[in-house]
Amino acid sequence: MAEVAHMIDTEVFLAFSTYAAIVILKMMLMDLFTSYLRLTKKVSYKSRTQQMFYSTHLNQCNVSPKVFANLEDTNLVKTTEDRRKCVRVDPDVERVRRCHQNDLENIIPFVVIGLLYALTGPDLYAALLHFRVFVGSRFIHTVAYLVALPQPSRGLAWIVGLFTTFSMAYRVITTALFL
Amino acid sequence: MAEVAHMIDTEVFLAFSTYAAIVILKMMLMDLFTSYLRLTKKVSYKSRTQQMFYSTHLNQCNVSPKVFANLEDTNLVKTTEDRRKCVRVDPDVERVRRCHQNDLENIIPFVVIGLLYALTGPDLYAALLHFRVFVGSRFIHTVAYLVALPQPSRGLAWIVGLFTTFSMAYRVITTALFL
Amino acid sequence: MAEVAHMIDTEVFLAFSTYAAIVILKMMLMDLFTSYLRLTKKVSYKSRTQQMFYSTHLNQCNVSPKVFANLEDTNLVKTTEDRRKCVRVDPDVERVRRCHQNDLENIIPFVVIGLLYALTGPDLYAALLHFRVFVGSRFIHTVAYLVALPQPSRGLAWIVGLFTTFSMAYRVITTALFL
Repeated sequence: MAEVAHMIDTEVFLAFSTYAAIVILKMMLMDLFTSYLRLTKKVSYKSRTQQMFYSTHLNQCNVSPKVFANLEDTNLVKTTEDRRKCVRVDPDVERVRRCHQNDLENIIPFVVIGLLYALTGPDLYAALLHFRVFVGSRFIHTVAYLVALPQPSRGLAWIVGLFTTFSMAYRVITTALFL
Repeated sequence: MAEVAHMIDTEVFLAFSTYAAIVILKMMLMDLFTSYLRLTKKVSYKSRTQQMFYSTHLNQCNVSPKVFANLEDTNLVKTTEDRRKCVRVDPDVERVRRCHQNDLENIIPFVVIGLLYALTGPDLYAALLHFRVFVGSRFIHTVAYLVALPQPSRGLAWIVGLFTTFSMAYRVITTALFL
Repeated sequence: MAEVAHMIDTEVFLAFSTYAAIVILKMMLMDLFTSYLRLTKKVSYKSRTQQMFYSTHLNQCNVSPKVFANLEDTNLVKTTEDRRKCVRVDPDVERVRRCHQNDLENIIPFVVIGLLYALTGPDLYAALLHFRVFVGSRFIHTVAYLVALPQPSRGLAWIVGLFTTFSMAYRVITTALFL
């Protein structure tokens, strides 16, 4: 970790900045997508299986097309329905929220570990490999989650991202070790 | 992004450090506030509407003034009640937790993007504008969430914070671009 | 905060990198542990009390040994059971997830504030004290949460970690103050 002060301006750091910004933007889009779903959700399921699966749920909410977590949010939409029925839990919104939560749990550690990793002065090609594999795996993970691809596609994308971060953390600890 | 190593000591970086610390402290206070509510919560709703809204819920928990997520936490309070009834979900505690979760999903990206943004050497006044607008919007968001102000107050505060972060991310990506 | 550019290579920064990487690795292991539990969970409770506590829950799920959040995940295990019954909520998995969420809410602020703190050029022994106390308190917190130690053990570990971060944030704000 010698001379890191001079390395903060290197290509590795520029690459880290670019990939970190891209992957964080992707994470923030999940936030926008959740809000979009909450405001526009119609009760419509893609398949009969899904509908049967959520049948108990549908019985409670099939008169309410919007999904809000707070009572005061219901005045965001014009509706003649009972507003209280709009405060409900929807399986599709919950799916996006679980995907977002998984992003938080994986992308934030990547960004923090990646910053320290970029400061250890790694080889440019090794660093680019780590950043590209991680960012790619998270995009695959998001697609696999949102369209419910059969497993283990999502599980593999998640584990690849996790081990990329572990690999960077290993280099940070072995390079910087000072307990 | 030239000469960033010399820029880490600039006024932009000092400003970033100050605003980042303030907004993270605000986020951590939500954590303390949740614990405070869990320990002191009495079942008391502000309005008749709210009470009716949560009536199903009240039927289960109106004998239990505390709100815990774990059984072992119930020995934090002296009570003659059935301890198991204290392990429950409370609408006010859930409101604070949703606010805290929204902070996590927005403030952490701001801090990471803001750090990279400060290293791109932006104009001091542009940087201060970004930091002040974001921190201000998050304080308004928290107040709007906790006292349940009518929408779209909370929605606007959230979207202003989001676009401030997008604006900084745009500068990071265009300045540092190295894929 | 003078001459921080030269301080990024100091022992304080090396110590920060080491402790930050360790505590983030610990947090990511919670993610792996959740997945492990979801795939291997058998319905077996340690005590009669716990079993009674979750009795309502058990009635719904005692034929289903696995715990998934998504229907498509159920093809990860070979089972002759009804797959839909595997999509359920389990008290032990929820405990790990609450522990993970608390990590997110406390470790990420520590890492961000700790980075800014390391750049303010603190005394090495003061910095090491902060980092060691925080990392120690989080390990105690995790053990206390997972094996359900009697309170206030977990509460104390949490509050110690919180005040360590507050102490570092105080130094960041007083050193860098630029509003």
